[in-house]
Parts: sequence; C-alpha cells; structure tokens
Amino acid sequence: MKSSTHPRTQILTSDQCLALLGVAPVGRLGVVVGGRPEIYPVNHVLHEGDILFRTGSGTKLDGAVGQPVAFEVDGYDIVAQTAWSVLVTGVAEEVSRVHELLDLMRLPVFPWEPGAKPHLIRIRPEAITGREFPAVDMYADQPVTRTRR
Amino acid sequence: MKSSTHPRTQILTSDQCLALLGVAPVGRLGVVVGGRPEIYPVNHVLHEGDILFRTGSGTKLDGAVGQPVAFEVDGYDIVAQTAWSVLVTGVAEEVSRVHELLDLMRLPVFPWEPGAKPHLIRIRPEAITGREFPAVDMYADQPVTRTRR
Repeated sequence: MKSSTHPRTQILTSDQCLALLGVAPVGRLGVVVGGRPEIYPVNHVLHEGDILFRTGSGTKLDGAVGQPVAFEVDGYDIVAQTAWSVLVTGVAEEVSRVHELLDLMRLPVFPWEPGAKPHLIRIRPEAITGREFPAVDMYADQPVTRTRR
Repeated sequence: MKSSTHPRTQILTSDQCLALLGVAPVGRLGVVVGGRPEIYPVNHVLHEGDILFRTGSGTKLDGAVGQPVAFEVDGYDIVAQTAWSVLVTGVAEEVSRVHELLDLMRLPVFPWEPGAKPHLIRIRPEAITGREFPAVDMYADQPVTRTRR
C-alpha cells in the first residue's frame, strides 16, 4: 500500500496478520462489479493460510469467483488502546471438488446471514498487509461499543 | 443488491441505514485501483446525509476522488442478537472550497490512523442498502468481542 507511515504506526508481520485474520469474527469482502467497488461482510475462517466463507448466489458470488478481491478485517484492542487493520488481496475461487468440500465443510464456516449459502469460496492470499496504531484520541468522543439505534 | 433474501432478514429503510451510518464508529471504504478492489477502514462522520472522512495522500485518496466508491458499516446488536450491515455507493469528492472546509472541519472527523491527513473526502450517497438479521447461531462459537492475539 502506497501511503505515508506515521511513527506511531506499527507495520504488522504476515504472521501477525494471519493471527488477526484467524480471530476476527467478521471480515469484509471487496469485489468489483461493473467497474464499481462493493463491500459485503462475511463470516470467514482461516484454514491453512486461506480465507474461506460461504455465500449464496448473487452479486457477491459473481463478483468474487475468478476475480481479484480484497478481504479486510479490523479491530480495536481495549487493553492496549490500539486499533489494527489487515488487508488481503488475491483471487477468489469456488471450492467444488467433492473431497475438498467434504474436508472443508467440517470447519465452522457460518454464513453472515441466514438463508441458503451453498457456495464455499476460498481466497488464497497473494498479498497481506497490516498495521496497528494508538487509537486513544480517535475514540475519545466515539464509543467503541456499537449502540442500538 | 441482487441477492436472495431470507425470511428472517429484514431490509432496512434509508432512514434506518442513515441512523446506523451515524453511530458506527468505523466504516470501510472500498475503492478500485487498477481494476482491483481495496478496502480501508476510516473514521467517518455523517453530515447532512453525506459521509465525511479525512485521509492523507496515497492509494486511498487516488482511488477515491472522482471515482465510484463503496462505504460499508456493520455491527452486532447484543441485546437483540441481530447483526446488521449498510452499504453506500456513490462518487467520492475532495472538499476544497475554503468556506466549506472551515464549516466542515468543526465536525469531529478524527482520522483512523495517526499522521498528516490533510484531505477531507465526501461521499454523497447515490444508493443506500441495509439489512438486519438474527445472528444467534453465527456467533455461538465466535466471541463478538475482539480478542488480543
């Protein structure tokens, strides 16, 4: 990522990024549909370095399979008062071989939304970047806990 | 969004979506760079129906200004045990008129990351979609609270 890096920003290693990808309960899939970006939250699991999630038919599937995608997770560490984010880029593929499906479907891959989600999608990361930085000021006026509208 | 809708999924109204955009402390900006999607977390504010955030120079700015972008927020309602997400699409523009800047810079727009963030970006939503659904099963094995790696 071409970006100025502030002294208080810590660049995370690939191992740190993978660890965060493994614990984040929700990630966001970025796809390009007709030249325009779209973002969908998904529940994913990390399996042997790959990101796996289930989806139904529709824009998300069409925009993802065989296409370059982005996958992002972020969070806030209450104890350390640091915020972090990890961005993965790669090409998404649908897992369709029976023996792979049987193997992978034992993983706790819960879809983000109820409904039929018969497609299992895998992103094999081509690039992983992550950063962590103090977030004290940022959250001073903004509660971290999501509030009921 | 072309997608099958499950009976337990509730489509949110524009007003509900705007309310959620207003309370979510972090949103994710989706941009297309060289035909590939990228996602960056940003701290935004909602002002007169527009999304505003600050950024430095770099990929995020280059990929956003004058281009179609996506902006996503999501969350989990602990009391109702529902998850929700809102997706905005539109074109991003940089606020550069002095009187507008003076007016808008009074808003609590804190950047997600420390460092010089001299650019104020505005997304005027062209489309807003949102949904809410029960999330009990999904989170059964996955703590909502982000844990320290």
